[in-house]
Amino acid sequence: MQPSDHRPAAQIPGGAVFPHRHLTGIDGLQPHEIAFLLDEAETWVDANRSHAAPDKRLDGLTQINAFFENSTRTLLSFEIAGKRLGADVVNMHAAQSSVKKGETLIDTAQTLNAMRADVIVIRHMASGAVRLIADRVDCPVLNAGDGRHEHPTQALLDALTIRRRKGSIAGQRVVICGDVLHSRVARSNILALTALAAEVRVCAPSTLMPAAIERMGLTPFTDFDAALVGADVVMMLRVQNERMAGGYIPSSREYRLRYGLTPERLAKLPDALVMHPGPMNRGVEIDSSVADGPQSAITEQVEMGVAVRMACLDVLTRRARGVEGWA
Amino acid sequence: MQPSDHRPAAQIPGGAVFPHRHLTGIDGLQPHEIAFLLDEAETWVDANRSHAAPDKRLDGLTQINAFFENSTRTLLSFEIAGKRLGADVVNMHAAQSSVKKGETLIDTAQTLNAMRADVIVIRHMASGAVRLIADRVDCPVLNAGDGRHEHPTQALLDALTIRRRKGSIAGQRVVICGDVLHSRVARSNILALTALAAEVRVCAPSTLMPAAIERMGLTPFTDFDAALVGADVVMMLRVQNERMAGGYIPSSREYRLRYGLTPERLAKLPDALVMHPGPMNRGVEIDSSVADGPQSAITEQVEMGVAVRMACLDVLTRRARGVEGWA
Amino acid sequence: MQPSDHRPAAQIPGGAVFPHRHLTGIDGLQPHEIAFLLDEAETWVDANRSHAAPDKRLDGLTQINAFFENSTRTLLSFEIAGKRLGADVVNMHAAQSSVKKGETLIDTAQTLNAMRADVIVIRHMASGAVRLIADRVDCPVLNAGDGRHEHPTQALLDALTIRRRKGSIAGQRVVICGDVLHSRVARSNILALTALAAEVRVCAPSTLMPAAIERMGLTPFTDFDAALVGADVVMMLRVQNERMAGGYIPSSREYRLRYGLTPERLAKLPDALVMHPGPMNRGVEIDSSVADGPQSAITEQVEMGVAVRMACLDVLTRRARGVEGWA
Repeated sequence: MQPSDHRPAAQIPGGAVFPHRHLTGIDGLQPHEIAFLLDEAETWVDANRSHAAPDKRLDGLTQINAFFENSTRTLLSFEIAGKRLGADVVNMHAAQSSVKKGETLIDTAQTLNAMRADVIVIRHMASGAVRLIADRVDCPVLNAGDGRHEHPTQALLDALTIRRRKGSIAGQRVVICGDVLHSRVARSNILALTALAAEVRVCAPSTLMPAAIERMGLTPFTDFDAALVGADVVMMLRVQNERMAGGYIPSSREYRLRYGLTPERLAKLPDALVMHPGPMNRGVEIDSSVADGPQSAITEQVEMGVAVRMACLDVLTRRARGVEGWA
Repeated sequence: MQPSDHRPAAQIPGGAVFPHRHLTGIDGLQPHEIAFLLDEAETWVDANRSHAAPDKRLDGLTQINAFFENSTRTLLSFEIAGKRLGADVVNMHAAQSSVKKGETLIDTAQTLNAMRADVIVIRHMASGAVRLIADRVDCPVLNAGDGRHEHPTQALLDALTIRRRKGSIAGQRVVICGDVLHSRVARSNILALTALAAEVRVCAPSTLMPAAIERMGLTPFTDFDAALVGADVVMMLRVQNERMAGGYIPSSREYRLRYGLTPERLAKLPDALVMHPGPMNRGVEIDSSVADGPQSAITEQVEMGVAVRMACLDVLTRRARGVEGWA
Repeated sequence: MQPSDHRPAAQIPGGAVFPHRHLTGIDGLQPHEIAFLLDEAETWVDANRSHAAPDKRLDGLTQINAFFENSTRTLLSFEIAGKRLGADVVNMHAAQSSVKKGETLIDTAQTLNAMRADVIVIRHMASGAVRLIADRVDCPVLNAGDGRHEHPTQALLDALTIRRRKGSIAGQRVVICGDVLHSRVARSNILALTALAAEVRVCAPSTLMPAAIERMGLTPFTDFDAALVGADVVMMLRVQNERMAGGYIPSSREYRLRYGLTPERLAKLPDALVMHPGPMNRGVEIDSSVADGPQSAITEQVEMGVAVRMACLDVLTRRARGVEGWA
């Protein structure tokens, strides 16, 4: 029997369905804990679509979004998620940050903590920075992307999208293609999808494939067409312009030829789901007709993002809010 | 009989007093629709002045201000308007935008839409960008200024200011002076004031006068003193520094001599109302004693701006909120 | 008898416990008025710690934070304070400001006023800018730091921290060390602590000592070790990198030797409280082991900051809110 990724929260032993204080990564989460977060997010999808009377369960709580690295989508998504739940949401932009005056990350953490934040969302260019802050504050910390390490809410929203469109995650063949080496999105997705019993294939130019990929139990592909055989889901990663300049990739035209999701490639996979974390380089890693076509779940991913973040903000603050079952 | 700019909403056939989904411009609005928005705004002027108990009719709705072009006043005004109505207001600044990563405008529109915004306010440097986004989202879109195209809420606040100070708009002689060629403020004002039966005169240096001005049924003036004869309202446009550098205007000193609203010019118009959309170049297009004098309505324009934006946010979201009369 | 800094508000003659419309500085405040603000802040410390049901007494009020000078901590602190009280908080960042288009400060003030702000918080690089704005608006103005002039909420939070940790302020020997010449923090603290009958000692390199220090009734110290004798509180100021470049300070290494709060220096003062307004230059004006040690009140200062700002926002808006005792 395959591990179920849909076990109801009530069945989880002890009642404490999500025993973690922070969400710094997918690493360390049990499959049923991931599934629990997806189940919770599912309820917010419906609420957001129905524009029902607002459920302000975080009323009076202070959510600080400390973004040391710019991000439109992720910041917007977390901000909307928090405000929909009634939290007082405050953004700290790196551009206006004391970090520029040479303040250490630990001092920033202590400052945010002293202001009595109830939850802190952090994005940082350094791998491990979020963990460092989480260890020094009294409230839950949510990782919104740190260096090459993890981007757990992206993996959760991707998993939720797959589960909704494919019925389940277990057994699905998911191809992740692009700059796997530098991608926290890839890393978190590999961890989440593997935990939920998907069959994950990783495809990248050899210069952009992590050496450790086989140790993660995955077979590396450098030939995109070979990787795509039998794929249920194709998850394209964004090509960073820096990679081009850095000599990892010869040219955007050649990249598209070898690793771009073109209509020709997709034609062989009429049932496959197309995903991209955005923002897209149309005409490089993905063609416009594919991104906008009927197999694309790209805008649904964005929608799931808000729901997943609402679920994470809700679940992580339950203990502090005295919600039952969190003794 | 002149068209009335004050027809009560109840008299409008069909009950659907504002049948448009978006507000992308004044172009396409009927005179009674413009008057309806002004009537609605009027109620918010009183509410804002009395500091009455807040009317949070947008509670639970998400308003995204997507500003691709910087603007302090307009952003502040829309943000205050939305928050006063209880909306969850989220700002997307261009500086932190994925647009910088090469994302297309359409992708941004789809992203904002997927986050289930209830109303989107857009400012963009490209004419027509707002319409492009409006065509791709499920919620109302408000134009906060796009390129040289339109800035409809500015025209509405100007019209409201004139109506309050002069009793009505029909029959008023309004002189608009400055860089008409590049001004969306001028364009939206010409459309609104003409629709409301004002007599609009346009005055500009010949290099800054649109070729199409006569096709709009207006007589172009290059002599400011001739244009001012018998004026009831003098609306000065901001001189953009870029125009100076671009060779359109010889110098700020000469501009003031020929097109500046000086105390000497205003002395001949003791009953005229002085207006400026701000921010002002004091001593260039307008003298300080005029801007701060008793005939100036410049700060009242700012006040009307918040009221007009509250009215537009309220009216455009009525359908989604199920307010009666919007079947 | 020393002046009491703890007189209950009820004892203040006339009932109008804080008769000032604005808080532009500590200068001009009576000792009992300062103590009243500290008493009010004290109640918010407890509320913030208990995460009790939110007290949204500023519901429906508009708070504009107009920051012409970047500041992470102070802006965050004022934003959290206002939101916790239920205000609609709107930030105006200098980077997106019309000031860049040449608008005068007075025009900005009139604009914010016309938008019917209920309270305006201002930070500006020019001394006196806050007073200038306060004179032109109809609502209370709070100084969040202006040039070298004042930073009153910083002085209040420092005073509150001392009062809580030491029991009282009167009679405490407080040593303020660093760039006193350019520091609004030092200036406001000297005024507040002197008013509350502390014994204030000021220590700085001679190039960074104000000439007027003796006229303020203070003895200037250039020898840090001499200044520290018998200190109850040591308040370190931040070394601005500009000062290094400006030739005021030879090197950070030498600065630390002469003016840094090292473990060796602190060892002679086992009961002294260590304070710093942040952000710190660890290893320059203060050593890490001191900043993080048991005598440090640095994170408590940050916490008091939110409480003090909540108190100031509450007290200054009482008149407009019709709270009793403000006829």
